[in-house]
Amino acid sequence: MRNLRLTIAYDGTDFAGWQVQPGRLTIQGALASAIGRLTKENVLPQGSGRTDAGVHALAQVATFVTASPMPEGNWLRALNDILPAAIRITEVAEVPMEFHARKAAKAKTYRYRILRSPICPPLLARYVWHYPYPLEENSMEAAAHFVEGEHDFTSFAAVDPERVSRQAATPSIGGNHGSNVRTIFSSAWSWEEGEFIYTVRGNGFLHHMVRNLVGTFLLIGKGTLRSNDLPRIVDARVRASAGPTVPASGLYLVGVEY
Amino acid sequence: MRNLRLTIAYDGTDFAGWQVQPGRLTIQGALASAIGRLTKENVLPQGSGRTDAGVHALAQVATFVTASPMPEGNWLRALNDILPAAIRITEVAEVPMEFHARKAAKAKTYRYRILRSPICPPLLARYVWHYPYPLEENSMEAAAHFVEGEHDFTSFAAVDPERVSRQAATPSIGGNHGSNVRTIFSSAWSWEEGEFIYTVRGNGFLHHMVRNLVGTFLLIGKGTLRSNDLPRIVDARVRASAGPTVPASGLYLVGVEY
Repeated sequence: MRNLRLTIAYDGTDFAGWQVQPGRLTIQGALASAIGRLTKENVLPQGSGRTDAGVHALAQVATFVTASPMPEGNWLRALNDILPAAIRITEVAEVPMEFHARKAAKAKTYRYRILRSPICPPLLARYVWHYPYPLEENSMEAAAHFVEGEHDFTSFAAVDPERVSRQAATPSIGGNHGSNVRTIFSSAWSWEEGEFIYTVRGNGFLHHMVRNLVGTFLLIGKGTLRSNDLPRIVDARVRASAGPTVPASGLYLVGVEY
Repeated sequence: MRNLRLTIAYDGTDFAGWQVQPGRLTIQGALASAIGRLTKENVLPQGSGRTDAGVHALAQVATFVTASPMPEGNWLRALNDILPAAIRITEVAEVPMEFHARKAAKAKTYRYRILRSPICPPLLARYVWHYPYPLEENSMEAAAHFVEGEHDFTSFAAVDPERVSRQAATPSIGGNHGSNVRTIFSSAWSWEEGEFIYTVRGNGFLHHMVRNLVGTFLLIGKGTLRSNDLPRIVDARVRASAGPTVPASGLYLVGVEY
């Protein structure tokens, strides 16, 4: 048996997220089905973590165990021939059997793209969140740095029935499962071609955490909150203290570090 | 009554082309429906020409006549509020009643994007044609210039039942309806970020003409034909002498000049 690691890019728009669900089109389900067609094996690739419906990935990582002797280079082409164009395998590598895409992750980077131009070009509509209204971007930039370091991010975690199981799916590297403490290595806004982009790198993320952070920065940009309100919002450890969840279309899993 | 000119960008992927068709999602149909919601008038905007299913536009032009006194600036916002994100109005201008988007067109520019990288990123899959195989791009560049000037483009016109009516929809400026003679002002290939892009500007285009030209240049790139075969293919005035029709996903109506 061999353990193969896939690096995967996807346009999440038309998928019900990463995790396999009966009767729904999901990234994990499409991968399992493509691998099954090649090997006749019934395997479910294990990702570095879930992404929600509509969220994109530039380099998600997943592993699966197979008895197939097919060379790594052939896997790439064979999977891409079967998969829909919205999912592309960009790398296949054989890794030690004990390597686990989620447990071995040291850091993940997410990006959130906000298009600031008055009109959203149709070719970008699926790939950004369009917000053309006034924002104090300087305040948002200042606020972003307040979440760097180790914090309990309960205020930014989705309150939903899936919460406990979701958290287990994206634990911090320290292995404190069930805890909402995560370490953010960097958190910053930048400009790129008319887009205001939030990039955050950390050792783990709670369900909806990036979209809830962006929603909170947005309230700061609108002047509803001030950037130095952020420490208080973090300390409150109450979801209601933070801002709303922004749409999935702007969010990208940029990469996973091991 | 007023004559309003719309400039329209669209992602054609999920549409059955420009022209309204019962029970199908079309650009013209979506525009008519949006205008109808605002004015309660039953109008069909007249485009500069049709685009086929899956073809995109950066700046299609269409006009419609309305009794509505709504200012131009409000039209833009009101239409974009109603239209799907895949269609955006980028400009609204009141024009003389006699202005006609098709008849007044002096030139149109189309672009065809071929992605040459080994893997097509999911975020580009809807917006290019992915062709990663070897091509003699220099021969294709040389061939492109052979179609500049006034020619009978019958070899590059779709042979289909709609042909006669289609041609009437995109005549040359000279008004030679029913003729397959068109003037190409410029025809060239260029490179942009890993894409090999064909840009053609002319006084009118036959049905499938740009995609059939690209398909013919492709045979030259593959070495099946030589660039100096092109005059012979044009002279043949037989569809079978030219190359195949390449996929719609790479084609853009870039703009219309008046």
